[in-house]
Amino acid sequence: MGSTFGNHFRVTTYGESHCLSVGCIVDGCPPGMALSEADIQPQMTRRRPGQSAITTPRDEKDRVEIQSGTEFGITLGTPIGMRVMNENQRKQDYGNKTMDLYPRPSHADWTYLEKYGVKASSGGGRSSARETIGRVAAGAIAEKYLRQAYGIEIVAFTASVGNVFLFPPSATHPTAATNPEYLKLVERIDRKTVDSFLPVRCPHEESGKRMEKLIEEFRDREDSIGGTVTCVIRNCPSGLGEPCFDKLEATLAHAMLSIPATKGFEIGSGFGGCQVPGSVHNDAFIKAPAVPPGQDALSANVQRPRLTTKTNNSGGVQGGISNGAPIYFTVAFKPPATIGQAQTTTTYDEAEGVLEAKGRHDPCVVPRAVPIVEAMAALVIIDAVLAQQARAAARSLLPALERVVPVQ
Amino acid sequence: MGSTFGNHFRVTTYGESHCLSVGCIVDGCPPGMALSEADIQPQMTRRRPGQSAITTPRDEKDRVEIQSGTEFGITLGTPIGMRVMNENQRKQDYGNKTMDLYPRPSHADWTYLEKYGVKASSGGGRSSARETIGRVAAGAIAEKYLRQAYGIEIVAFTASVGNVFLFPPSATHPTAATNPEYLKLVERIDRKTVDSFLPVRCPHEESGKRMEKLIEEFRDREDSIGGTVTCVIRNCPSGLGEPCFDKLEATLAHAMLSIPATKGFEIGSGFGGCQVPGSVHNDAFIKAPAVPPGQDALSANVQRPRLTTKTNNSGGVQGGISNGAPIYFTVAFKPPATIGQAQTTTTYDEAEGVLEAKGRHDPCVVPRAVPIVEAMAALVIIDAVLAQQARAAARSLLPALERVVPVQ
Amino acid sequence: MGSTFGNHFRVTTYGESHCLSVGCIVDGCPPGMALSEADIQPQMTRRRPGQSAITTPRDEKDRVEIQSGTEFGITLGTPIGMRVMNENQRKQDYGNKTMDLYPRPSHADWTYLEKYGVKASSGGGRSSARETIGRVAAGAIAEKYLRQAYGIEIVAFTASVGNVFLFPPSATHPTAATNPEYLKLVERIDRKTVDSFLPVRCPHEESGKRMEKLIEEFRDREDSIGGTVTCVIRNCPSGLGEPCFDKLEATLAHAMLSIPATKGFEIGSGFGGCQVPGSVHNDAFIKAPAVPPGQDALSANVQRPRLTTKTNNSGGVQGGISNGAPIYFTVAFKPPATIGQAQTTTTYDEAEGVLEAKGRHDPCVVPRAVPIVEAMAALVIIDAVLAQQARAAARSLLPALERVVPVQ
Amino acid sequence: MGSTFGNHFRVTTYGESHCLSVGCIVDGCPPGMALSEADIQPQMTRRRPGQSAITTPRDEKDRVEIQSGTEFGITLGTPIGMRVMNENQRKQDYGNKTMDLYPRPSHADWTYLEKYGVKASSGGGRSSARETIGRVAAGAIAEKYLRQAYGIEIVAFTASVGNVFLFPPSATHPTAATNPEYLKLVERIDRKTVDSFLPVRCPHEESGKRMEKLIEEFRDREDSIGGTVTCVIRNCPSGLGEPCFDKLEATLAHAMLSIPATKGFEIGSGFGGCQVPGSVHNDAFIKAPAVPPGQDALSANVQRPRLTTKTNNSGGVQGGISNGAPIYFTVAFKPPATIGQAQTTTTYDEAEGVLEAKGRHDPCVVPRAVPIVEAMAALVIIDAVLAQQARAAARSLLPALERVVPVQ
Repeated sequence: MGSTFGNHFRVTTYGESHCLSVGCIVDGCPPGMALSEADIQPQMTRRRPGQSAITTPRDEKDRVEIQSGTEFGITLGTPIGMRVMNENQRKQDYGNKTMDLYPRPSHADWTYLEKYGVKASSGGGRSSARETIGRVAAGAIAEKYLRQAYGIEIVAFTASVGNVFLFPPSATHPTAATNPEYLKLVERIDRKTVDSFLPVRCPHEESGKRMEKLIEEFRDREDSIGGTVTCVIRNCPSGLGEPCFDKLEATLAHAMLSIPATKGFEIGSGFGGCQVPGSVHNDAFIKAPAVPPGQDALSANVQRPRLTTKTNNSGGVQGGISNGAPIYFTVAFKPPATIGQAQTTTTYDEAEGVLEAKGRHDPCVVPRAVPIVEAMAALVIIDAVLAQQARAAARSLLPALERVVPVQ
Repeated sequence: MGSTFGNHFRVTTYGESHCLSVGCIVDGCPPGMALSEADIQPQMTRRRPGQSAITTPRDEKDRVEIQSGTEFGITLGTPIGMRVMNENQRKQDYGNKTMDLYPRPSHADWTYLEKYGVKASSGGGRSSARETIGRVAAGAIAEKYLRQAYGIEIVAFTASVGNVFLFPPSATHPTAATNPEYLKLVERIDRKTVDSFLPVRCPHEESGKRMEKLIEEFRDREDSIGGTVTCVIRNCPSGLGEPCFDKLEATLAHAMLSIPATKGFEIGSGFGGCQVPGSVHNDAFIKAPAVPPGQDALSANVQRPRLTTKTNNSGGVQGGISNGAPIYFTVAFKPPATIGQAQTTTTYDEAEGVLEAKGRHDPCVVPRAVPIVEAMAALVIIDAVLAQQARAAARSLLPALERVVPVQ
Repeated sequence: MGSTFGNHFRVTTYGESHCLSVGCIVDGCPPGMALSEADIQPQMTRRRPGQSAITTPRDEKDRVEIQSGTEFGITLGTPIGMRVMNENQRKQDYGNKTMDLYPRPSHADWTYLEKYGVKASSGGGRSSARETIGRVAAGAIAEKYLRQAYGIEIVAFTASVGNVFLFPPSATHPTAATNPEYLKLVERIDRKTVDSFLPVRCPHEESGKRMEKLIEEFRDREDSIGGTVTCVIRNCPSGLGEPCFDKLEATLAHAMLSIPATKGFEIGSGFGGCQVPGSVHNDAFIKAPAVPPGQDALSANVQRPRLTTKTNNSGGVQGGISNGAPIYFTVAFKPPATIGQAQTTTTYDEAEGVLEAKGRHDPCVVPRAVPIVEAMAALVIIDAVLAQQARAAARSLLPALERVVPVQ
Repeated sequence: MGSTFGNHFRVTTYGESHCLSVGCIVDGCPPGMALSEADIQPQMTRRRPGQSAITTPRDEKDRVEIQSGTEFGITLGTPIGMRVMNENQRKQDYGNKTMDLYPRPSHADWTYLEKYGVKASSGGGRSSARETIGRVAAGAIAEKYLRQAYGIEIVAFTASVGNVFLFPPSATHPTAATNPEYLKLVERIDRKTVDSFLPVRCPHEESGKRMEKLIEEFRDREDSIGGTVTCVIRNCPSGLGEPCFDKLEATLAHAMLSIPATKGFEIGSGFGGCQVPGSVHNDAFIKAPAVPPGQDALSANVQRPRLTTKTNNSGGVQGGISNGAPIYFTVAFKPPATIGQAQTTTTYDEAEGVLEAKGRHDPCVVPRAVPIVEAMAALVIIDAVLAQQARAAARSLLPALERVVPVQ
């Protein structure tokens, strides 16, 4: 199982690298929304390899085709089937004799075989990055609704590559969350700005250049390097998240750690925040401004909460529930497992030997991961939004309470 | 919603701090297992406040009572109801006049009110730590099965408090995962050893003392501090985790970020691993030893995979699926929001003022979080185990394949 | 598994006849609703045995106690735990030597043992009618919401016992659905009227008397007899039901066939309707009256659809979705398996012999099943209502469409 | 929502009559099973219209194409995507001016519009029979597993059309279940025999002819008629079904009532059984024969329970759990709503008028429903089988109990 994400906006994906097509079914998309392939393709293209010298040179095209659930460009409220053909897979790169002998180190070859007792012969099967196509397609639909209904903006960017950080941890700021400069970025960054910093997608000229150079170095020595992506969600209504088990940070963490190659997640002050005293860390309440910082105006549908917080170490989430402030979190991506260097390892039959990988591979997945992180964030938020809309709608039909805090 | 965790071993909890009782229903516990309150109480007691000078002095007792699902100490396969009475809640500490006026900074008062439009008058309601009782009770049942069926061991310990680390990140080891000393700890640490380092539960004399001192300092200045808990799961069968969306690290992250006060999760090399080259980070395969390091013998039911890895930067999980090596991960806990210091903040009615908290509170939740982390880990693992057992059982009735990698 | 019902208003039950208590957790109850035990107890009492000479003489009391999820009589939106103690179980009636030897014919003894590999020693365990307590408690909460929010009325009654029918099938009306007298009953019957026809709960003096007499005859010869319960749901909004798999009739059927001793379900014209020509069976549309027949006024929140149907062979559901007309369906209950007569059967060890049942037992469960059918209907409807409210709320935030039927 | 069926073998369908394709994703198919389109196509073809003079003359072809989840004809354990193109939809039949004005009586036009606030312009949209394609494709995969693993046979046939019954209810046998001739049929009928009775698929020469003639009469007068399908499942292991809410009959009822045009479900003795005394209705236990009646031998994997029942009024299910005897149930299909006759009804705008339907339509859906009923039965059974296999596997790792009925 495990191919379905979400309870209210439910995405089920299918497909692996070797097969006819990849795709997904989205169930629960609100009816009556304008939707066509043109709403989905941009994120598909941002996700696509081959966008620069530092990503893999495959040109997969990845044209999405809506199968159902819309008529004349309007969603019907029925399941939306989507499909992207597989092509140009160059099976010979994979499936060669060496590859048949060795489970690739830190890849999923071995564990897939242990789990299923059978394994696709070529490439990464279901663990391949190609599986993320369905997520990005579904995420684009979710984003369209969130933007139309609330003006919600979801923007991810590269926050570090190797030991090069956009905001390096320091003694003063063990977490960037306490740094006002960082909060300003969180409040203002947009997707257009991020993409103006291609290929690395780090929205800072100098850091981006250093990251690019670092990636090139690793590429040149046939090695790889990891990094982090930070994602910001703005204009979220308050009240999102379903405690106790489906707190907003819990479902975000779930979503992010389901992306291939991820090893960590932190929200708000995160790991660095453990070093900050509670008296500094606590986000005091203030009266909310009419329009949030960094924005010109508000979507008509966004009813802002009356209070907001002076600081935002919480990352927009308190007690597992959004408070209306920007939500931001960071995801750790490990160095890609496929490297050109020879590796001493062991065959399926327990014989030690040397594996030399062929095939195309990214020295760093972080820049390409940006739209995938955004897609998964959109899937989490729309699910939480639909759950909370449902609660509010159910409640609205009951007689009003005299007091919101009951008393005897 | 959000009160249910797990698909195969499903826990539904109820209860908040002010009400009659807290508890849970466990559905899906295998039938025919010996089970009594004595199997559950120890972890309840380890979770309990009041174990030392540095934890909150409440004595809640927390006696668990099995309501159903067993007869004469044997599980029937039917739902197991469990209940723990609430008592000694000292409502006057909460529910006082000041508390009624102010949403406490970085607490859930404000967001619960925004979400539900109504709020329990006293204490933290469902966001209170008391909610974790049901988790710990259910986790103890899960653990018993995992131990009996596979010899699985789950051990958590305090890895840092504030800026005091058991294994501080360094230039050589930006992640402890690459440090052989750390791996040795991961392979050997047991719960008894951890509890011999009370009150902090950091299994290292000197670091533990420094952490204790740090917590005392924060307590004395009516402030609070965060920290991290590392958890190890050993003797897990390979094949656990349900890609693409329910990878093992994804469900672990979900579980951990659902614990109150958590802000981050990392598995294996985690965030530090982003700085390690792929050529170092990749875990080469080796033939597995008959008995894993740090153990005397193996549970009869554990069929070890034939291969294991030389290093363990993956943290026991590759492609979202366990590989049989120890699984380890770290969880970040923020400084507790309840502090004795006066805080300038805003009332529900948007008036700025000063809040002075009464009530008992931990200066650092990390030591008490240890059994909660273990419980949630047990719930994730049993769910994954039951899913994988189901797959293997289903498959075992099919004719054997000629080759595990199909060919034309 | 199988102890949870519903996706939006989710009930999880626990408990069997021998254990400490039975109960449930309700997750998803809208916050801000007035709720106390007094709202729940009446249906508990209607379900209770011992209400007349023709039901079992046990006096179980069945006092429900709310554990959580409310404060000062207001729901908080958090899980509502409920508990009813077990008492007066007279274990000696069950658990005797004969009972230990024989699986009772048409009981669940044998299948529970086959399924779980272990069996409660006394009584019916989880298959006992006592398990329905949690359902009735949860159903009462659901009903309260449905009544307050929409004025929805749910009324069940005995439609047949053995071969005595309230509306016997005839050549003219192979299904009662085509009989205008029947539709009038469906539009007007209320719970008070039903209970004025105790003990049988058939709202027709003469038929009820004949049914009562029939039951007495079966009781006197230590035999048992089955019957049917019809249930009506009025004032339902249109749009309920989630095709394709969770059509309203599908979830109603699921709910009803989950009640112990049920063998059939039919909605609208049902089985008899198979004999009616389409030209007669089709429900032509008419303009809806301002107030539905049989009612004085409308709940403020009920927005009636503009159209309704002249006839109602559909039973209020078309294409799996409610159309606003009364929903009605009938459930078949088999004769109770526990009879006083000696039965030739086989022991667990395959030896033929004679089983003579001790213990108290109903000669006919139909009258007691009435509140259980109502409870399960309420659980289905609230789940469908919350799903549809969610859809409508999600949609309401999108720009209005030019046309509801899209064109090129 | 509502587009997903099953918890362990999970089918998600998409598609409506007007769109590009219809299809589904199957998640949870056991890995390592031989599977190709050839395993699926036969049931697709049996479901297809145009098989005789009494079914609709469309030739839809309905070639299924596997998108993913297999390699070289072996299942990988990953999601299986399947797609069938839509073609030859003759939109002009639908979508005409009259159709745009009127919601068709007893169709889903009106309720879909009420539910979604938007409606596909042509044909039945998601409520069209075309939606069942995904079910039949998924069911064929389920069936293959059940046959290979257990030798399970699923056979449905037409049991009545209008008032012509294969086994008419009588005073002696108010339910066919008590008729030994009927039980013999249940134990022996196979799919090949059923299809030798085309076009009606009633396995009795004379009754079949009478049903055929009746359908022709209704066709000739541009009217329609309903009927019932009985389905038998043989060689099921005991222990299937998940009380309390997911009893086997409950999930079967759910599945069947989700098929378009169904109005009723009964299992075993069903509605007629309500008239049978308990002393007759109870199924006494007997020692099970080595090979079940009507079979030559047993699948190697079927471990037969030691006991079976002398009679089978229970329909193979007791306490919601299969007992190993044949499971049989009957489903009621209403007369198709689309008829050629003119109908007085009301437009969307509340104006009375006369609707004359164009387009192709079946006078009776029952014969075509046979493979759909089989498919849904297969989906229910595989889900129950996988759940029970999981339980048994989990249990098998625990120490053996001294007694299966615990004692003090």
